[in-house]
Amino acid sequence: MEYTLLPKIKGPADVKRLSDDELPLLAAEIRDKMIRTVAENGGHLSSNLGVVELTIALHRVFDSPNDKIVWDVGHQCYAHKLLTGRADAFDTLRRPGGISGFTRRYESEHDIFSGGHSSVALSAAFGIAEANKKRGSRDYTVAVVGDGAFTGGMVYEALNNAGHAGKGTRLIVILNDNEMSISKNVGALARYFAMLKANPQYFRLKATTENVLNHIPVVGKPMAKGIYNVKTRVKNAIYKSTMFEEMGFRYMGPIDGHDIDHLVDALEGAIEADYPILLHINTVKGKGYALAEREPDRFHGISAFNIETGEKKPGAKGFSDAFGEYIVKAGAKDDRICCITAAMALGTGLVPFSERFPDRFYDVGIAEPHAVTFAAGLSRGGMLPVFAVYSTFLQRSYDQIIHDCAMQGLKIVFAVDRAGFVGDDGESHHGLFDAAFLNSIPDVTVYAPTTFRELETAFDKALYRTEGPAAVRYPRGPAPEIPDEYLPSDADYDYFGAPDADAVLATYGRLWREAITAKETLEKKGLSVGLLKLNRIKPVPKAAVRSVMEAKRVFFFEEGQRFGGIGETFADKLCKYGYRGAYVSTGVKCEFCTQNTVAGLLAEYKLDAASMAELVLSSNEKHE
Amino acid sequence: MEYTLLPKIKGPADVKRLSDDELPLLAAEIRDKMIRTVAENGGHLSSNLGVVELTIALHRVFDSPNDKIVWDVGHQCYAHKLLTGRADAFDTLRRPGGISGFTRRYESEHDIFSGGHSSVALSAAFGIAEANKKRGSRDYTVAVVGDGAFTGGMVYEALNNAGHAGKGTRLIVILNDNEMSISKNVGALARYFAMLKANPQYFRLKATTENVLNHIPVVGKPMAKGIYNVKTRVKNAIYKSTMFEEMGFRYMGPIDGHDIDHLVDALEGAIEADYPILLHINTVKGKGYALAEREPDRFHGISAFNIETGEKKPGAKGFSDAFGEYIVKAGAKDDRICCITAAMALGTGLVPFSERFPDRFYDVGIAEPHAVTFAAGLSRGGMLPVFAVYSTFLQRSYDQIIHDCAMQGLKIVFAVDRAGFVGDDGESHHGLFDAAFLNSIPDVTVYAPTTFRELETAFDKALYRTEGPAAVRYPRGPAPEIPDEYLPSDADYDYFGAPDADAVLATYGRLWREAITAKETLEKKGLSVGLLKLNRIKPVPKAAVRSVMEAKRVFFFEEGQRFGGIGETFADKLCKYGYRGAYVSTGVKCEFCTQNTVAGLLAEYKLDAASMAELVLSSNEKHE
Repeated sequence: MEYTLLPKIKGPADVKRLSDDELPLLAAEIRDKMIRTVAENGGHLSSNLGVVELTIALHRVFDSPNDKIVWDVGHQCYAHKLLTGRADAFDTLRRPGGISGFTRRYESEHDIFSGGHSSVALSAAFGIAEANKKRGSRDYTVAVVGDGAFTGGMVYEALNNAGHAGKGTRLIVILNDNEMSISKNVGALARYFAMLKANPQYFRLKATTENVLNHIPVVGKPMAKGIYNVKTRVKNAIYKSTMFEEMGFRYMGPIDGHDIDHLVDALEGAIEADYPILLHINTVKGKGYALAEREPDRFHGISAFNIETGEKKPGAKGFSDAFGEYIVKAGAKDDRICCITAAMALGTGLVPFSERFPDRFYDVGIAEPHAVTFAAGLSRGGMLPVFAVYSTFLQRSYDQIIHDCAMQGLKIVFAVDRAGFVGDDGESHHGLFDAAFLNSIPDVTVYAPTTFRELETAFDKALYRTEGPAAVRYPRGPAPEIPDEYLPSDADYDYFGAPDADAVLATYGRLWREAITAKETLEKKGLSVGLLKLNRIKPVPKAAVRSVMEAKRVFFFEEGQRFGGIGETFADKLCKYGYRGAYVSTGVKCEFCTQNTVAGLLAEYKLDAASMAELVLSSNEKHE
Repeated sequence: MEYTLLPKIKGPADVKRLSDDELPLLAAEIRDKMIRTVAENGGHLSSNLGVVELTIALHRVFDSPNDKIVWDVGHQCYAHKLLTGRADAFDTLRRPGGISGFTRRYESEHDIFSGGHSSVALSAAFGIAEANKKRGSRDYTVAVVGDGAFTGGMVYEALNNAGHAGKGTRLIVILNDNEMSISKNVGALARYFAMLKANPQYFRLKATTENVLNHIPVVGKPMAKGIYNVKTRVKNAIYKSTMFEEMGFRYMGPIDGHDIDHLVDALEGAIEADYPILLHINTVKGKGYALAEREPDRFHGISAFNIETGEKKPGAKGFSDAFGEYIVKAGAKDDRICCITAAMALGTGLVPFSERFPDRFYDVGIAEPHAVTFAAGLSRGGMLPVFAVYSTFLQRSYDQIIHDCAMQGLKIVFAVDRAGFVGDDGESHHGLFDAAFLNSIPDVTVYAPTTFRELETAFDKALYRTEGPAAVRYPRGPAPEIPDEYLPSDADYDYFGAPDADAVLATYGRLWREAITAKETLEKKGLSVGLLKLNRIKPVPKAAVRSVMEAKRVFFFEEGQRFGGIGETFADKLCKYGYRGAYVSTGVKCEFCTQNTVAGLLAEYKLDAASMAELVLSSNEKHE
């Protein structure tokens, strides 16, 4: 479609300037722009289509960035970006150097908090609201939180804390209820939300009654208490007490989240309260694009696709698929195997297992800390639990891995997906920490396969040949092709080349392919090059370190944070064993990496074959 | 008192053998034993005194260890230990090699899950209950969870997940409501629990009605649905719907947690349900010891004290006190400073600040993840938040420090108390991970002061002279006395001695005192010894590494996990700069350290002055 309104919107003031009648057209243009862009660049579609009207209403009512809108996760911020001066650049969505698929503070003053991980917006928004109160500001803070995020415990920690704050706390929490987080919403809460929906509340009536009750004059303390009790009883009679009210919030809703008029009325009503408000809205994921409404899961996060058919190019088999196939075979042979996911059944490749063994499949919601401790309980009860999780989200379970898993000496297998660079999701999603944080935890074993066959071996070891907790970490996407002569073995490490090579390239995981190419390049220049691959990265095999003691120079490459990483452990062991050659480790040096292609990121952080070869050559020159 | 019953109790079977009439005497003997032991050895008193009757009732009704009792935190397990064969050894409580103050799996088959951290029991217990269901076992799993732990989000993640499980899940959650977690319980939940108390429920009536309703014959689907609706309405009419029922649990209570008969009846009622049950009991913290009932906070975790007066030996001023004094002064000068605690106001030294600046003091409950993100919000809103937290509990905020703090570029100051060995609380409480996990996070700066004066300098730097998030870590207890000539400066590191020393001892924090003593020992033997102290441990100052390049041997000592720690970063930098001497780092090598005195632990892990000197000397012999 041709856009007539969107090009005029340079910021929230322009949204306010439109007439009420123009808003449905604006919503349609936003949806069209989103669908076209995501069809081209990939991205989050269902969640973004669901909040178009909400976003328009928010920018009609509130004065961003003075009033602060905090988007939980941020996978629903496209309309917000289109309305806050980023429509022209929107074609670069998720491209290298382009617009981020999540809120990013450095991108716009309207992006209040950088997003990516779930269930944190309410905590942040309450902090901002409190700061406003302390500083005497009357600005509002709004947190937009999906129903899926309510399966994460931080939301309750925040509700408990914020509900206590009471009058004068200018905080509005919007529960965006689309009956569907990333996977189908699970558990008791989903039922609870459904029950609320069946009992529509009338917030206008509530506001009026409240108002009347608040103006009953109070005579002395006992009288005040009496009136308070009456008020409580009247309130309970008029509007059903909800969990949120029990936690100290005023509850409003549920209202239709695709009716801009209603939304604006509700938001204005919420402002009048001068009290922490929970506004419950109902939206439809994928709204306005029939294919996404029908299959919201598939269009949650999607790569480029055909708008008419919804089809996308069949991708190459990835590590998630390989894990998914393996674990079905393993589960068929061993009925102690249970699989656990934190709302990522599709992404982690667990759908086939969940269909084949529904009794041994647990989607616990977006609750990574609980997932690990629940798995520990399953293990304590005699099962063999496998927790499949993205590297970046496993960060949330650090203490549970220490306290509830390793310290208990319990076997849990961690299938750590998306380890290393993930590409276009950017800084909040790269899996650059797991090697380092798992490295610090006693008694955990970590395998880093490069090929699908090695992945199977690693899981066999993790399940049956490793004491205590074990992790298998693997990158997003397909496996690199490894020449036969460099295929990893079943041992803890492999060394290829002369022990006294001029240079040894040491690495693990996906970078093995890069190291092989670099070796070829360097050998053409006449250098003798050894290759060391760690198949097990924790503990670093002592024999692997000893295998390079005669090499003149050792170069370690790591697709992860350098500080605290495996390269440093390797350095420490080299020192301990008295290595006297040169050692240089390369990793991500303490920074957050923005979005880019994986190849682009490997080059940017000097982890691709060309950079490896260059580093060896430049160091060679220095030596000569 | 002289014990007549306790000596006969060698296990749960003996508890069952007693007559009902004997139980009050057993409770009295248990209390006496607890008070005497804690008065001598220190320990948790208030929480343990509160659950004596509950523990007796549990071991009367359930068949441990087939039925599995999971104690949340484990600071209320003394009666459980006394009834499960550990009464004779109980005098060794918290002593080196003695009985642990928490549940420990290696100590007894009745200790189902090792305790220490809060809010995890329900997750673990649900896992065990699920495993039982899968394996066809009809054993029960019981989680005992304090009301304070309900401020932690994992409880909701677990409730949401477990409530969904429904019939056949033999899981009983006991909400031990003593209106007081470690500090006074805070927030909306405390009010909610108070409301429940004001409306006593009658579980017997509930069970009967339920039973009748469950036996109404069902004719066809629509009829079934109709009956279901009737049931729901009847249920709601009979017993007020609670948050727990909304989450899928059957709610029972509240009942008197000091009445063994009632407790036994309730537990037997819960067993009949064959459904996830939440049993709400009211207990009094410190029950049976007047001084503890009056001041439950002071007797929560306490060192040795006089039973008659409750007085304890005045301890030396500790780092927590020094921080407490500093932050009051800082708060008086800068009204942006806010202090946040996760239910540890007393332990972290924040009481003076909370009294002086109640408006800028936040106790968020046992909710470390929320604490960090809330602090991030305060920072985003223009305040200067300081989160005071024990090292071991900060592990729970690893992802929030990465995602909500460092990635946002927000200034939060972390006052990391109890960094290093804590002594008698043992493996769940040592602060041995913070250096390593903070090391892996970009843009975080970490200071490790040795003296109180240096602590003040470090906080000045963290608050006003450091970009981005900053942590100051310091040990439990008093500061070591440092001779004037070795006092740390305000620089990022200090080096004392000749640059080409035979040996350099490098370290940070509390170990500085040990290194000084070791130097003196070694110099008496004719060695030239350099001393390097890192005042800032992250990033490791490059100049500090360069300062030892001429030394023959460098020995790094670290009171923390070696893998991923500062010693490895130091090794990596030495390699990078081409150091050709010998380097050995000593830290805790990937294990969980049990309880001991701090001095004992330093010796055990070769981190005391004597071990340092010995290491240098033995390495010297090898060289000669």
